Amino acid sequence: MVRKPSRQVRVGLVQMSCTPRPDQNLKKALGQIAKAAKEGAQIVCLQELFRSLYFCQSEDDAQFALAEEIPGPTSKALAASAAKHKITLVGSIFERRAEGLYHNTAVVFNERGKMIGKYRKMHIPDDPRYYEKFFFTPGDAEPGFFAVPAGPACIGTLVCWDQWYPEAARLTALAGAQILFYPTAIGWHKEDGKEVRQAQADAWELIQRSHALSNGCFVCAVNRVGVEDGLTFWGGSFVADPFGRIIAKASHDREEILYADCDLGLIDWTRRHWPFLRDRRIDAYGGILKRYGQS
Amino acid sequence: MVRKPSRQVRVGLVQMSCTPRPDQNLKKALGQIAKAAKEGAQIVCLQELFRSLYFCQSEDDAQFALAEEIPGPTSKALAASAAKHKITLVGSIFERRAEGLYHNTAVVFNERGKMIGKYRKMHIPDDPRYYEKFFFTPGDAEPGFFAVPAGPACIGTLVCWDQWYPEAARLTALAGAQILFYPTAIGWHKEDGKEVRQAQADAWELIQRSHALSNGCFVCAVNRVGVEDGLTFWGGSFVADPFGRIIAKASHDREEILYADCDLGLIDWTRRHWPFLRDRRIDAYGGILKRYGQS
Repeated sequence: MVRKPSRQVRVGLVQMSCTPRPDQNLKKALGQIAKAAKEGAQIVCLQELFRSLYFCQSEDDAQFALAEEIPGPTSKALAASAAKHKITLVGSIFERRAEGLYHNTAVVFNERGKMIGKYRKMHIPDDPRYYEKFFFTPGDAEPGFFAVPAGPACIGTLVCWDQWYPEAARLTALAGAQILFYPTAIGWHKEDGKEVRQAQADAWELIQRSHALSNGCFVCAVNRVGVEDGLTFWGGSFVADPFGRIIAKASHDREEILYADCDLGLIDWTRRHWPFLRDRRIDAYGGILKRYGQS
Repeated sequence: MVRKPSRQVRVGLVQMSCTPRPDQNLKKALGQIAKAAKEGAQIVCLQELFRSLYFCQSEDDAQFALAEEIPGPTSKALAASAAKHKITLVGSIFERRAEGLYHNTAVVFNERGKMIGKYRKMHIPDDPRYYEKFFFTPGDAEPGFFAVPAGPACIGTLVCWDQWYPEAARLTALAGAQILFYPTAIGWHKEDGKEVRQAQADAWELIQRSHALSNGCFVCAVNRVGVEDGLTFWGGSFVADPFGRIIAKASHDREEILYADCDLGLIDWTRRHWPFLRDRRIDAYGGILKRYGQS
């Protein structure tokens, strides 16, 4: 079982806290991108909706004022940053697509600052303090899940709630993604006890590791930290290898840039030895397109 | 977050070692079923191909002699055992369907000894010492994945290699299964080092826990123990709850019956609070029916 020579790609995941001032958050993110690039990160990923507080904790229509068009100020700042530092950059933008039509959108810029991917979050949650169905229209692109050659790797972007869906990871991997990026904003309710907190963070890690494993690819999850109103965002950003093992993990309560060197040679190697893609029963998966049972 | 009154179902998973003598193995299994029933198990599950050694370590056509028709001696013995002890019983049989047509089949008997489910393994592995493609025709039932009301719970059966496929778990859960059973035969190659062994057993546990989590159901994995030729079967049978937490786990090297009380009330409760089924994008999953990319 000799492995191919390694093809290392360094990723940098920016885990940060946010303030009520978008300009401050954007400035901080740009600073962290610069730092990550300096440390050799070839692909940098920001957390979900990094430019603002997580504004979905209430159904407050004043928050729509945070949205921007793409291209718009934030996407232009990210594009310039990607070009300046010659990196691939994954950002997250509250997108205003038209009057009354808003999306939670991940954007990918290449090392020349060109936008090479725009992914509108497909699965939209709605839970107490996560009122995203109020704000975001579900993505409607065709196909909804995709991968893009992005410098040193072919990557796929998914956003937060998508992480609970094996279908989303599978489709993105089948589109050719070697690394899946999940910009995220997930936290504990202030009334949650220690046991519940642990179970939730464990589940969040487990499901994303399982995507790495079942698809034989890398997974990068990027979560925010800090207390915002009733939520304590739990950070814990991590990178899982194609066998579902965590190769790097951030703290639950500090701002940091998490680095990992992803050996892309592991993908083919892992898939040869645990050839899950080989044996998929695509003739028998039709029911996946149903809501439940036969209907 | 008050939960419904509990609806406990006791499962008993029979983890055993096998000898070259099928009659001995069957006798042992019947004894363990009786013991499990006496301890209150309402659903008992045996490991994959419990009646023999794991005969797929070489492509030896003499091993086809182990196969039986269904109904046949083993299925009749299992049916009688289920009726005698008034339990639901999940067994595993090397099935001879016709001349030159063999399956790796899970069978479900109700508490009156009636066969209420027959599942022919859908995903067939082929790796060194797991030459299953030589022996087993992939299942061709329509639908391939299903659930059956079986006494105290609606259950689904899948077999070993199926456990690496989120699609199989999803389809079985969408068919109504509250508990997924995975009769299994998985082991370490004798040349594998400690680190590889740990990674493999961890991955095996991880992927099945992820099915419990993403579908909000219980998962029961039942593996054999013992050294057979070049393989050390790693046991570690376990039960995961709908949040992906392990609620019972067996040793890696001893024969035992693993018991767990599954509170079916947790299923609806978990799915209400983490409503993954609610938000599935069935309009966008068409690519799951493709092998790779767009083709």
